[in-house]
Amino acid sequence: MAIRTVVWGENVHEQKNEVVRNIYPDGMHTCIARALSDDKDIQVTTATLQEPDHGLTEKRLAETDVLIWWGHAAHGKVEDAVVERVCEAVWSGMGLIFLHSAHFSKPFKRLMGSPCNLTWREAGERERLWVTSRNHPITRGLPDHFELENEEMYGEPFGVPEPLETVFVSWFQGGEVFRSGLTYKRGAGNVFYFRPGHETYPTYHDKNVQTVIRNAVHWAHNPMQRLADPKDAPNVPVDKAPEKIEERGPRLHQAGEKGLR
Amino acid sequence: MAIRTVVWGENVHEQKNEVVRNIYPDGMHTCIARALSDDKDIQVTTATLQEPDHGLTEKRLAETDVLIWWGHAAHGKVEDAVVERVCEAVWSGMGLIFLHSAHFSKPFKRLMGSPCNLTWREAGERERLWVTSRNHPITRGLPDHFELENEEMYGEPFGVPEPLETVFVSWFQGGEVFRSGLTYKRGAGNVFYFRPGHETYPTYHDKNVQTVIRNAVHWAHNPMQRLADPKDAPNVPVDKAPEKIEERGPRLHQAGEKGLR
Amino acid sequence: MAIRTVVWGENVHEQKNEVVRNIYPDGMHTCIARALSDDKDIQVTTATLQEPDHGLTEKRLAETDVLIWWGHAAHGKVEDAVVERVCEAVWSGMGLIFLHSAHFSKPFKRLMGSPCNLTWREAGERERLWVTSRNHPITRGLPDHFELENEEMYGEPFGVPEPLETVFVSWFQGGEVFRSGLTYKRGAGNVFYFRPGHETYPTYHDKNVQTVIRNAVHWAHNPMQRLADPKDAPNVPVDKAPEKIEERGPRLHQAGEKGLR
Amino acid sequence: MAIRTVVWGENVHEQKNEVVRNIYPDGMHTCIARALSDDKDIQVTTATLQEPDHGLTEKRLAETDVLIWWGHAAHGKVEDAVVERVCEAVWSGMGLIFLHSAHFSKPFKRLMGSPCNLTWREAGERERLWVTSRNHPITRGLPDHFELENEEMYGEPFGVPEPLETVFVSWFQGGEVFRSGLTYKRGAGNVFYFRPGHETYPTYHDKNVQTVIRNAVHWAHNPMQRLADPKDAPNVPVDKAPEKIEERGPRLHQAGEKGLR
Repeated sequence: MAIRTVVWGENVHEQKNEVVRNIYPDGMHTCIARALSDDKDIQVTTATLQEPDHGLTEKRLAETDVLIWWGHAAHGKVEDAVVERVCEAVWSGMGLIFLHSAHFSKPFKRLMGSPCNLTWREAGERERLWVTSRNHPITRGLPDHFELENEEMYGEPFGVPEPLETVFVSWFQGGEVFRSGLTYKRGAGNVFYFRPGHETYPTYHDKNVQTVIRNAVHWAHNPMQRLADPKDAPNVPVDKAPEKIEERGPRLHQAGEKGLR
Repeated sequence: MAIRTVVWGENVHEQKNEVVRNIYPDGMHTCIARALSDDKDIQVTTATLQEPDHGLTEKRLAETDVLIWWGHAAHGKVEDAVVERVCEAVWSGMGLIFLHSAHFSKPFKRLMGSPCNLTWREAGERERLWVTSRNHPITRGLPDHFELENEEMYGEPFGVPEPLETVFVSWFQGGEVFRSGLTYKRGAGNVFYFRPGHETYPTYHDKNVQTVIRNAVHWAHNPMQRLADPKDAPNVPVDKAPEKIEERGPRLHQAGEKGLR
Repeated sequence: MAIRTVVWGENVHEQKNEVVRNIYPDGMHTCIARALSDDKDIQVTTATLQEPDHGLTEKRLAETDVLIWWGHAAHGKVEDAVVERVCEAVWSGMGLIFLHSAHFSKPFKRLMGSPCNLTWREAGERERLWVTSRNHPITRGLPDHFELENEEMYGEPFGVPEPLETVFVSWFQGGEVFRSGLTYKRGAGNVFYFRPGHETYPTYHDKNVQTVIRNAVHWAHNPMQRLADPKDAPNVPVDKAPEKIEERGPRLHQAGEKGLR
Repeated sequence: MAIRTVVWGENVHEQKNEVVRNIYPDGMHTCIARALSDDKDIQVTTATLQEPDHGLTEKRLAETDVLIWWGHAAHGKVEDAVVERVCEAVWSGMGLIFLHSAHFSKPFKRLMGSPCNLTWREAGERERLWVTSRNHPITRGLPDHFELENEEMYGEPFGVPEPLETVFVSWFQGGEVFRSGLTYKRGAGNVFYFRPGHETYPTYHDKNVQTVIRNAVHWAHNPMQRLADPKDAPNVPVDKAPEKIEERGPRLHQAGEKGLR
């Protein structure tokens, strides 16, 4: 069965800024979605900030295997209820790929538990991405390094937790470096952060970038059944303990009572 | 200079429940603080939920090297503004030690970015903690394993991210296991989760448990100067780039403009 | 294309010890291989210590996607040249699954770079394995925990490096715990250690154990092309540098010279 | 008590190559040792390849808290017995810091279990190291980045296991990047790899490099008592099991017998 993938785009600068509109006349999300649609194992749709529930209802998320997130100008307009819903979907097993300025998106900050800050410069300089984890599935079909002639600079220190694996590190013409491909697991869900994609440059038209995102969809996809309630903290009563024990000592909770949260 | 340590106690069951009051007549936080006060390199005070700002003002946190957190019945009563303030203190370099039921406290969930759930049983069963990282500083002075005759059971799966290091794993009489000592770094701050400490048992009177907490204070303490603004994302203008570059291509931001969040 | 899997068995106790022979009349490796052969995506063969090159020639390893290793009595009889060959195959991308007493096998110790020691007891006690990484691909189709009525005990501390992920933790009737499922990456190859499998008990006839091993084969398989020389350290001459630079300062090496090792 | 630190130098190019001798007239190890001797909490001595046992007898290692290793031309001349001795010292709790070309030293390859390869270029280009783990103890007193005007380039992919933490990432003038500060734990010992230090440049005279090495000595030092036998795998007999159990089923080992290796 194909991997049901949703590309979520903020879709703001494409409407307001002529430079961005010229590069992505149908929106950045559409450009990314088209690149994925070449892969017959991926079934791709899009969603945007402007739709009701930002296009991310409970039902939609329940039927999404991998979500891709791009946002920049309107992080603050994403409703907290949707953010929590997205995070719960991740915890239950949905994959989530964050692109570029999504480092400051609400769901990324929520899942990382850290500031997610960095240094930056918008000067159209050259970026070169180096593979740091050989033959990692996300690097399939890539050379050891590839270049983007014009990109925004993101520099270290990047305020994120130590990842499971560092997959890419970027070199910038102006002298900075950045860990630009990082993997995480949160609950049952796989999370990947990928740096490139400033909206005033044609980054998502780049073949190598498209390859990374396509690989990341495959990597992030967890084919196992989603957890029904990823936040559940079940009581295991004494008579259901794997080993026979007898209750001892004083108790706070009465039998059958729910735990405190 | 001594490590300025604050033991934060929810201080609810000690007031309401006679069993708990009998074990901890001055509150659990006071018991923990006393155990730390034997160490001349630790300067300890306490704070509770009932104080203004829960005893955790900006000023207090700025002067705290390590915070210890115990809560259970009243997680929901901790104000969100204080939670955010505590997390920012961690990101700027404050150490934070979460005890037992603090796995469901707001700051722990915020820093982990995951559900932090588990299975549980209150039956006064035996717990045995095993050291899994030999000679880790948090295990200083401990044997390879030690026992608590009566404890609440916490069982896997524990809904937390993969830690930097797993320091302890617990065995329970009823048949479960739990990763009961886990280290993390968030921003510039060290975080340690330590499992034991159900309020109806005399766990914080146990010498080995006290040793762990004392060691953890030393481990979590970062003597470097705290970051002034751990969430800052500074622009590096073209003329301040480490390497000389010339600006190219279109721009979204005007010179001197702040980045989008 | 099916995953070309080789089950390597030491095949010593099956020949010498009647208890073991009765449980595994065709050898432990054959029992494991049969369990895998139900999976049409796995193409399985076996190899043993007694064969020339222990059945692991350069050619055989080059055509092996995933190797499974069980050994106990004869670790010392495995030739160092074969060990090095196996490790190079891992570094080039072959998956390698170590079972039970293979914690002391030469290739495991070589790949871990640590003592790989533990405590142990052969008393036929009950082991219960708990999943600690929810929905990890290696846990597909398993319940949250499962039991083996008779197993050898392995206890912490387990002398291995911190893994990428802890997938299982074991509870033992005698009071110990053990991190019994651990993932690693070495070079381009995926490595998994799985604890159960003492030869005097019918562990590899257990359905859940078979499921773990089958899942691990899929997880460890890296479909990307193997690295031609995983130890290569190529010089990048000045005129091939990604950015134009001029040579400066004194040199140790002459142009075209190989690096020192 | 001061941290007993030994700086081990291969001491070959200093003798043979005039450029190196001019920069380090008393040897690189002496230059590094002098930089450490400013710290009153460090008590430093040196050892070289040319001494009996390369200066690293059992006794010397037993009295060494932290060892620093620089080698390049003569990795192959280091005796295997000394390599094993050094690794056992690490496993028992000694800290070990590997500098620059020591990435291909025998003890580093042994402790990593991986090829430890990289790409390289000797062109005297500029290197800029960026801190990637804020306020990590190894970065104490350093700015967010610092430069070395002339260095050998080392490029990714670096063939090492994923570290506990990535502390530095290097930018090179010629377009490459490298994870140049990595932490590991092996057994009870802390291990740090630090990239800079090609012998034809005055790197170890640089104040920031000296600060890193001094910090790393403090970080790597484990004040706990060294493990007596870090490779021991003790049997726990049935009557010594933490929980009372009865032996069941068939056995391979007789009572009191040693385990197989």
